[in-house]
Amino acid sequence: MLLRSGTLTASDGEAVAVDNQTAASGLVFVCEHASAVLPPSAGDLGLSPEALSSHIAWDPGALEIARRLSISLDGLLVHQRFSRLVYDCNRPPESPAAMPEKSEIYAIPGNLNLSPAERYARTAALYVPFHDRVSTEIARIAGEGAKPVIVTVHTFTPVYFGKPRAVEIGILHDTDSRLADAMLEAAAGGPYRVERNSPYGPEDGVTHTLRLHALPQGFANVMIEVRNDLVRDEAGLKAISAYLADLISGALERVA
Amino acid sequence: MLLRSGTLTASDGEAVAVDNQTAASGLVFVCEHASAVLPPSAGDLGLSPEALSSHIAWDPGALEIARRLSISLDGLLVHQRFSRLVYDCNRPPESPAAMPEKSEIYAIPGNLNLSPAERYARTAALYVPFHDRVSTEIARIAGEGAKPVIVTVHTFTPVYFGKPRAVEIGILHDTDSRLADAMLEAAAGGPYRVERNSPYGPEDGVTHTLRLHALPQGFANVMIEVRNDLVRDEAGLKAISAYLADLISGALERVA
Repeated sequence: MLLRSGTLTASDGEAVAVDNQTAASGLVFVCEHASAVLPPSAGDLGLSPEALSSHIAWDPGALEIARRLSISLDGLLVHQRFSRLVYDCNRPPESPAAMPEKSEIYAIPGNLNLSPAERYARTAALYVPFHDRVSTEIARIAGEGAKPVIVTVHTFTPVYFGKPRAVEIGILHDTDSRLADAMLEAAAGGPYRVERNSPYGPEDGVTHTLRLHALPQGFANVMIEVRNDLVRDEAGLKAISAYLADLISGALERVA
Repeated sequence: MLLRSGTLTASDGEAVAVDNQTAASGLVFVCEHASAVLPPSAGDLGLSPEALSSHIAWDPGALEIARRLSISLDGLLVHQRFSRLVYDCNRPPESPAAMPEKSEIYAIPGNLNLSPAERYARTAALYVPFHDRVSTEIARIAGEGAKPVIVTVHTFTPVYFGKPRAVEIGILHDTDSRLADAMLEAAAGGPYRVERNSPYGPEDGVTHTLRLHALPQGFANVMIEVRNDLVRDEAGLKAISAYLADLISGALERVA
């Protein structure tokens, strides 16, 4: 790993963390936007404390949901330890959103006119180790005889560019909609407003992790988006996580 | 490293090789296009044997020049073991030239419409390990008290898109032209036709390695391009390598 200002130094620790390593179900939860933490060497990217703790830095509540799902469904969880402001692990290096110069209403001064060396350093320090680890874990699980199922867990902001969003839970998919279809069918008429490919869809580039790790090998997969005002307290987290766990396990029975 | 069809498998071996590890001069030669070898797992990319051994696959003679320079000037040499047809390590992942769909007059069927997973796999298997190694070696050399000097070594085809090229040796640079200036001054009136930023220049994206490893830290650097018909036999290799060694060492005395 390249050690350079703006990226990881040895004291920053690893970019990727894995929970529930001994999980047996074959479910692999992935949380690319788990953390708002900047590597100390990255400074503040020229952002205010408000911006640095907002949804542009991370998906608030996503890691908590993913952890609960990984426990209740006995799945593995891979999560990124650093903020997507430095590198968004759900985007390839060729995407402008990988090291964004702006996000929603916020300009990100520390990401303006990044040098090739800085782009390289972030790619090598954050993106590649993250997906190498996801890949390694999936290969291990498949090698041990379980059928990998990839579920990425995200949250979204209730107000985007000043506009409130009505959707509460988004079930997103790319070309393989098996698991999403089954979840959407089960969610119809239920307690939450659940929508297909909303508030984002594959045309927004948000299915990158699914494209890397599920589609090439034909593993069942889905991306879940939860409106973050629903998971701001323990009661909300508990309700949403239990709801999603039921949705996933029911859908898996029908898809498998 | 991701193991996947079209990229490296464990039996392919490492992507990067280092010669003259105990070199003491601080010179670091880099040869991104040293090899025409495809990883066995990559097949033939749909190319003819003629195309697979042509300049689109590698820089013929570049590794031999770089090896002679590294010995005569006591420098380290880092070279890529696989063809740039799979990943061109002198380009960032966001460049269309990194995994080119065509090169000069050749379409490259095996590189058409690469999936995100395949792009990721090649980046992770070939690009990142190569530049991580260059970076690690430079940091080690600097840590041991020598002053790193980065020299990338390339060759070019005498006929490009049907047009003969008159230039024999190109001395290329990006924003830091110290070493190139000194070499060009010494080459004036000499035995070879030597030109600045020819047949390519930084506007063609060819100074990526210099941008990664020399410019951010202010290390003296240059990119050398030799017309490959001049190094097709032992006599040519010997003459060009001796000429370049003199040019580099003379220039370093004036720049250092």
